[in-house]
Amino acid sequence: MLEGFFQPSAIAVVGVARSEGKVGHFVFDNLLDAGYPGTVYPVNPRANEIHGHRCYPDIASLPEVPELAVIVVPAPAVADIIDECGVAGITSVIVISAGFKESGPAGGALERDVLARASAHGIRLLGPNCLGLIATESQLNASFAGTMPPTGHIAFMSQSGALGTAILDWAGSEDLGLSHFVSLGNRADLSEADLLSAWADDESVKVIVAYLESVASGTAFLEAASRVTRHKPVIALKSGGSDAGARAVSSHTGSLAGSEAAYDAAFHRTGVMRAHTVQELFDLATALSRQPLPAGQGVAILTNAGGPAVLATDACERAGIALASLENDTLERLRATLPDAAALYNPVDILGDAEPERYGAALDALYLDPNIRAVLVILTPQAMTDPSSTARLLADRVSKTSITTIASFMGGHSVAEARTILRDGDIPVYAFPEQAVAVLGAMGSYSRHLERPDITPPTFERDRDTVARLIADAHSKRHTFITEESASTIATAYGISVPRGFVAQDLASAHAFAKDIGYPVVAKISSPDILHKSDIGGIAVGIDTPQELANAYETILGKARSYAPDAVIDGLHIQEMLQGKREVIVGVNRDMQFGPLVMFGLGGVYVEVLKDVTFRLAPLDQPEAREMISEIRGFRLLAGSRGQKPADLDAIADVLVRISTLVSDFPEIVELDINPLMVGDSGEGAIAADIRIGIGGQE
Amino acid sequence: MLEGFFQPSAIAVVGVARSEGKVGHFVFDNLLDAGYPGTVYPVNPRANEIHGHRCYPDIASLPEVPELAVIVVPAPAVADIIDECGVAGITSVIVISAGFKESGPAGGALERDVLARASAHGIRLLGPNCLGLIATESQLNASFAGTMPPTGHIAFMSQSGALGTAILDWAGSEDLGLSHFVSLGNRADLSEADLLSAWADDESVKVIVAYLESVASGTAFLEAASRVTRHKPVIALKSGGSDAGARAVSSHTGSLAGSEAAYDAAFHRTGVMRAHTVQELFDLATALSRQPLPAGQGVAILTNAGGPAVLATDACERAGIALASLENDTLERLRATLPDAAALYNPVDILGDAEPERYGAALDALYLDPNIRAVLVILTPQAMTDPSSTARLLADRVSKTSITTIASFMGGHSVAEARTILRDGDIPVYAFPEQAVAVLGAMGSYSRHLERPDITPPTFERDRDTVARLIADAHSKRHTFITEESASTIATAYGISVPRGFVAQDLASAHAFAKDIGYPVVAKISSPDILHKSDIGGIAVGIDTPQELANAYETILGKARSYAPDAVIDGLHIQEMLQGKREVIVGVNRDMQFGPLVMFGLGGVYVEVLKDVTFRLAPLDQPEAREMISEIRGFRLLAGSRGQKPADLDAIADVLVRISTLVSDFPEIVELDINPLMVGDSGEGAIAADIRIGIGGQE
Repeated sequence: MLEGFFQPSAIAVVGVARSEGKVGHFVFDNLLDAGYPGTVYPVNPRANEIHGHRCYPDIASLPEVPELAVIVVPAPAVADIIDECGVAGITSVIVISAGFKESGPAGGALERDVLARASAHGIRLLGPNCLGLIATESQLNASFAGTMPPTGHIAFMSQSGALGTAILDWAGSEDLGLSHFVSLGNRADLSEADLLSAWADDESVKVIVAYLESVASGTAFLEAASRVTRHKPVIALKSGGSDAGARAVSSHTGSLAGSEAAYDAAFHRTGVMRAHTVQELFDLATALSRQPLPAGQGVAILTNAGGPAVLATDACERAGIALASLENDTLERLRATLPDAAALYNPVDILGDAEPERYGAALDALYLDPNIRAVLVILTPQAMTDPSSTARLLADRVSKTSITTIASFMGGHSVAEARTILRDGDIPVYAFPEQAVAVLGAMGSYSRHLERPDITPPTFERDRDTVARLIADAHSKRHTFITEESASTIATAYGISVPRGFVAQDLASAHAFAKDIGYPVVAKISSPDILHKSDIGGIAVGIDTPQELANAYETILGKARSYAPDAVIDGLHIQEMLQGKREVIVGVNRDMQFGPLVMFGLGGVYVEVLKDVTFRLAPLDQPEAREMISEIRGFRLLAGSRGQKPADLDAIADVLVRISTLVSDFPEIVELDINPLMVGDSGEGAIAADIRIGIGGQE
Repeated sequence: MLEGFFQPSAIAVVGVARSEGKVGHFVFDNLLDAGYPGTVYPVNPRANEIHGHRCYPDIASLPEVPELAVIVVPAPAVADIIDECGVAGITSVIVISAGFKESGPAGGALERDVLARASAHGIRLLGPNCLGLIATESQLNASFAGTMPPTGHIAFMSQSGALGTAILDWAGSEDLGLSHFVSLGNRADLSEADLLSAWADDESVKVIVAYLESVASGTAFLEAASRVTRHKPVIALKSGGSDAGARAVSSHTGSLAGSEAAYDAAFHRTGVMRAHTVQELFDLATALSRQPLPAGQGVAILTNAGGPAVLATDACERAGIALASLENDTLERLRATLPDAAALYNPVDILGDAEPERYGAALDALYLDPNIRAVLVILTPQAMTDPSSTARLLADRVSKTSITTIASFMGGHSVAEARTILRDGDIPVYAFPEQAVAVLGAMGSYSRHLERPDITPPTFERDRDTVARLIADAHSKRHTFITEESASTIATAYGISVPRGFVAQDLASAHAFAKDIGYPVVAKISSPDILHKSDIGGIAVGIDTPQELANAYETILGKARSYAPDAVIDGLHIQEMLQGKREVIVGVNRDMQFGPLVMFGLGGVYVEVLKDVTFRLAPLDQPEAREMISEIRGFRLLAGSRGQKPADLDAIADVLVRISTLVSDFPEIVELDINPLMVGDSGEGAIAADIRIGIGGQE
């Protein structure tokens, strides 16, 4: 895919300036300098030749139809050039020119026009307002970034052109190999999802990295990323730009479900690894482009110095990485070859005077240990150390194993050559052991993602018609919230337990129902016109006797009539009162990009003060819901401890799955809180004590 | 201080090997290569000359008394050399030789012998088992680390020799200037505290950095570090080595107060900045050695690209750094000089085509803004960018301001020269904006430490005699815990409120006391021989009536007699029952290095499951205690929210201060838990409902 962009047969550059120092001139020069083997045609009606290349007045005059056009003319002239391209049959266009959406409403109109014309001609368009692109294997530099990075297997897209330039420059000085660089610009047409798909099928690409400030389309990103990560790692550095202001925040969930939570959930769902700094992004990309993923847990550290091994061990602990226990056979092998003073247990410290052969012998022993899936080799340059020979030996050993091996050769000049040897031998090498450990941690997370099956679609019976009817009903009344009684009905339609209840239209039937379910009960005014019942004194809890119920009946109906004389009163809603169970909260907020974001947390202060909550994108299945439940800090309160019985975790997970299905089935539901969900001991189930459903789309 | 080590008049190297590749030979070569201007005498009875230098058979034969001796002979021979040094009048000795404490008990005995002889002669000793030391200004390399780092103002000590070597090597390649490097080795005599004190008074040292796996003496470290940080920054990378196994963990506090918590508290108390990676350590050291501390809050970001500014803004948010609001005057100044498309508000984006002068004009405006105390200048190498000229211009501007200025010039080759220019102009420069922001965050924390006054000693009245008597009493009975009644008395002696209580020896007096304080009451068996009262059914709570009290009296005394027939029974302890107040926990655990570590947290699951606690070293004063209270995650539960009244924070702080004084006054107290401390609304006070005091030192 996108071959027209990355391996075009010939290229037209429209708007090549005659004078140096102009963008159009840079782009043309860069194309020539990079050694692109196809023909590059400069197009400029006011020039006859540029650098000895014949210049053409327009696309129509070209001697052949190039596959790719790079447009660098001023913004208002772009649309007509698109038409020229379309008429000529060009299908891939890069618009480098700025002055579009980023510059204000007038530019936005220009951009829409350009996109419309491109679509009409079937043209795919990169930009506008971008740096262009680079494909190192094709020797193609269709950008105004001067630096051509070293060839490699990392494909890099950037929503920031300047950050892209800086990273290309840095890649050159760090000998970091890239296969592609794409500056996304305004993403009028091509977006991150298109590039993910294109690079998924490109064998020169081993790792995809992206700098993103947002995604152009959440749905497209989720679809493409989920597919790509199944066979190729994707790492994103996602920065800033809160859109909290644009979000409904009337619910508990809404107030906690910021855009960052949604992006984290999207990355979790799709298996995209998230880096937090540029350094982390490329540390990880380098490792993934050079080494296989660890085939399970279990890391060994091999070192010639104690201090750095302690740093690495600390970092492992912080990252939750388990150091492997060595088999007795391994210890025997190590003992047979290492000096007496060596530390045989992991970390394996082969001492400050370790020569290359000692590294080799220790590595041989570690590679044979079935508990070890990854090895971190640490070297510090001490008096007797030979970093380069050690590096050569490592490269030889690593070429013969499938066990993930990464290195931290600490120091500067003394290890510079050794680092180059390691990189040439496809061993990722880092200046500090902490970096190497962070990389191992991320590789491990990605491995675990690959083991995770896709979400299983829900199979439970559900009554969609009832829900559709109640939502339509609310829409017709221009309500933004479903009434409490309807919310209960909706929950029931999706198999979620709610307290037993009955709308009594007279005191006698209230008494009869209360006797039936047993005291204590709760009484609430039932009226489609009164949403905030407690504000008008429309709720009584803890009603213990028929006499108290009679009092509540009179008081509540009286208050309703006096505070809301025009309200339609359906009666008094009598409910069973749930007591002595654990309270949790389940919520949903619809993210503008990624759709329903499901929240789980302990109730009350755990949510409001401690913000001990976790998020996933809908839909969920039972394993995913169980994972959510277990990752809150307060999980031990549910799992049972100190003689307490565990909560019914299956029931909570079931509610999460059903709720996530409900909000997936009905996009009209924009937010939902079950607060609290009352949870019994294991096997006793869970009951949604209070459900609040907000709806949109009623315009 | 330690001039004999860092500026010795002459140096003897004892044990210079004739053959290359031996440690003794390396050390001698390094001393000569570094250009040390004084005389270096090789000492070796089996050689006449080394490298054309006359070799002496022993110390006594030297033509003068050198100030410093460097010993590299085998471990068993070291003690006699120390004697030779002592007899000759040498006062500073470095023992590089290994084979001491680190090698086992026999080596430990050798080390004690060496230390004893050194002490007898009044010799200060560095090592043994160390790399030696470097002082760049003296051109002194008395180490077997080959690399002499660039001269600078960062003094670096390392508990790991190999890590030290690696960092020296790295310093060379990164152009990182050091004033000193000291390899601490086994710290038989000189430890981190001695070096802190020595470097505090050395004007060539602007920043002290340390790699530590432990401290040799907590007391000495606290004393030296507190003093030094008042006028010179200290940064520590403290790694691993949990000593949890060696600690009493019978209390709640003990189970949470790991060695890491103690080190964090020690660093907080002393103002030592803690780095978590080597990179962080030197990023920060570089900044502190080149730029003044920000004189308050308020950071401005000046950039030629949006993406990196977003990364920097994100990093500021994560680090809790406030971006300054610009004054209207500043905005006017910026508007007058910048292109229309520039972003004037912080971050100030002067656009991709920013030439050096535009950076200069924007910087001039920002420096005039009273809200700005630090500026981060970001540059990405774009088509029109001139990094080196921009760097020169920045260096000029920065030399004329006292506002903290740091830079992130992103990229590789394109900005390499510019980075050198910035460093030469004392502007710290980082490859990525996130690094620069982390540095600003740490500088800000250190500034706040400097503003914090020293802890005020407590002035409240306290009855030490009673406490001493009760501890002595418990000691005499070989108890490891103070009885509950004595613990209450101790609390009262230090002005901490406890529930009203009375040990009734008959039912009538129990009734009288309960009537006096009012029901409900709590009844507990009172016996010095029964510590775990609830285990034998020796506690009844919620006693509402005289009849219930009579029942409890009979039941509890009956159970006590049947379960512990030999126990001395003092009677039934009747206490007021505290209800409906907030519960918090105050605890103390005595750290082996740093002494009493005071913990504060919310009670119950907040401590046990969520581990929402904070630690400080004793003693505390009111402001420090208030800071503790406010830094737990659940602070809002105490501060009052959603219509709730705030808790009596002053009363909690008062208890923290009093408890910290108690455990400082009585080192015999090894652990203490007040769990719960019942806290009323503001002004209502706090009552220690249950106090548990563990004592040691009774052997």
